[in-house]
Amino acid sequence: MPQIKPAIAIHAGAGSLAEDADIQKAERRAWIEEVLDNARTMLESGRDSVSVAVAAVAILESCPLFNAGYGAALCADGTVELSAAVMRGVDQAAGAVAGLRTVKHPVRAALVLLESEQVMMIGEHADRVALERGCERWPNEHFATDRQRARLRVKVSASHGTVGAVCLDEEGTLAAATSTGGRLGQPRGRVGDSPTIGAGTWADRNVAVSCTGEGETFVRTRVARHLATLVGMGERLDDAAAAALAGVSALGGVGGLIAVDAHGNLVLPFTTEVMPRGTWSAGSAPRAYVIERDAPI
Amino acid sequence: MPQIKPAIAIHAGAGSLAEDADIQKAERRAWIEEVLDNARTMLESGRDSVSVAVAAVAILESCPLFNAGYGAALCADGTVELSAAVMRGVDQAAGAVAGLRTVKHPVRAALVLLESEQVMMIGEHADRVALERGCERWPNEHFATDRQRARLRVKVSASHGTVGAVCLDEEGTLAAATSTGGRLGQPRGRVGDSPTIGAGTWADRNVAVSCTGEGETFVRTRVARHLATLVGMGERLDDAAAAALAGVSALGGVGGLIAVDAHGNLVLPFTTEVMPRGTWSAGSAPRAYVIERDAPI
Repeated sequence: MPQIKPAIAIHAGAGSLAEDADIQKAERRAWIEEVLDNARTMLESGRDSVSVAVAAVAILESCPLFNAGYGAALCADGTVELSAAVMRGVDQAAGAVAGLRTVKHPVRAALVLLESEQVMMIGEHADRVALERGCERWPNEHFATDRQRARLRVKVSASHGTVGAVCLDEEGTLAAATSTGGRLGQPRGRVGDSPTIGAGTWADRNVAVSCTGEGETFVRTRVARHLATLVGMGERLDDAAAAALAGVSALGGVGGLIAVDAHGNLVLPFTTEVMPRGTWSAGSAPRAYVIERDAPI
Repeated sequence: MPQIKPAIAIHAGAGSLAEDADIQKAERRAWIEEVLDNARTMLESGRDSVSVAVAAVAILESCPLFNAGYGAALCADGTVELSAAVMRGVDQAAGAVAGLRTVKHPVRAALVLLESEQVMMIGEHADRVALERGCERWPNEHFATDRQRARLRVKVSASHGTVGAVCLDEEGTLAAATSTGGRLGQPRGRVGDSPTIGAGTWADRNVAVSCTGEGETFVRTRVARHLATLVGMGERLDDAAAAALAGVSALGGVGGLIAVDAHGNLVLPFTTEVMPRGTWSAGSAPRAYVIERDAPI
């Protein structure tokens, strides 16, 4: 049996160039490269895919330029509500949180849920469980950056954005993790696709998927689970990914996704102008993309 | 083109006889028959499947013997949190609410979301939006029955339960609706499969599905969307339903589902001891089942 080559792909949200006039390309590239370097070190040390995907998303949550954790998009009232999910392929264990307000790393709260009896918790109850289990507390106002306050004031159109990671480790276990601040100016209490297992996040024995885009459309088409069902029935990964995104387009939605299969194949398609993203596979150099359209694979 | 024959199936939760020593068979049958009579009248009057499915679930929410709305299972703290979802097949429009506390008919709150820009809202924000749009308010303590208070005291084992409806109208539009009080003794903030589009509730142009069972397992296997993907690829409805429930069994879970396809075929499989349920198709008599195992179709 050939040795499994670990691999990871990450994304930092599908969007338009117009909404990202302040794209800060060099800074974004540096963050993506940091995530890939960290993932590579962990995977080469034999760490499991759930830990690596969560660590990758946690770094992206710390970056003020991406819509997750610190720097997340603001709700209509100027506060922040955070959602995240994580799923392990080998046993389809999953954890998800929505409406978090005081946990620094929402993806770590999702991991708490993955390791608990529940799959999903919401609102202040999710905050409480995460903090009881050791997640770091952050006051809600600390998440809001001047950049996002300005974006809310001018009502940047249709800003979505999300961060995510999919990973295959040397044991052959797949994992996916996604985190988001939701849609700019959304009403408090709104939940999109990111924390919805099967919509924005999915992993099974065949494939791991993390999505980004117009959350409502991704929920209505169950993008990630749809892709996985197709792969499970023998479709090629790139064909299945294209079919899943075509389902989104059919409902008038745009976005992107990243997926890795059990053989380490990676796909990163998107139907928006840009999707900052990166990949690393054992034996290859890390590749980071900010505004480049060309697929890295 | 042959005329479309409207059809409906409903369920009132998959469970065990042991946990339902107080099964009150005659009363439950009467409620199910009322739901079917009402649905028949509406469908024969040309009403659309979303309206019929929502009305069916609203009646089941009013029944104190089923775990949804009035008579819902209590959370660990003795209060009630309610979740529901509704989806229309023709355009995959969907609405979902979780963690509701003061809306008498959660399925009507889900319908508000279906007709709004958002797909899912949670907690007090979902309550607020639903009440602003005309849903009836109910104080939280009104949902708790003596029956459920007693069940919480003795910690009836693994009580799940949910209610749901799937419907095909004379225009050929499919719809699914599901409503639940969650798991007996659950922590506040827990969300199961019922309000999770693609897990407990799904409708597209081919099939409508409503599930009941161990919510976490249904979320982790995306039962409803999985069934729909199989049907969309040409599998027979009964085979697809069996495959979807087999995925639940593979993870150690039990439960049931109801589904109707665009030809009016109905399936109501379950892997628990009982699943109160009923069906009506144009040209047939309504059929109600409380503890009978034999499939009605």
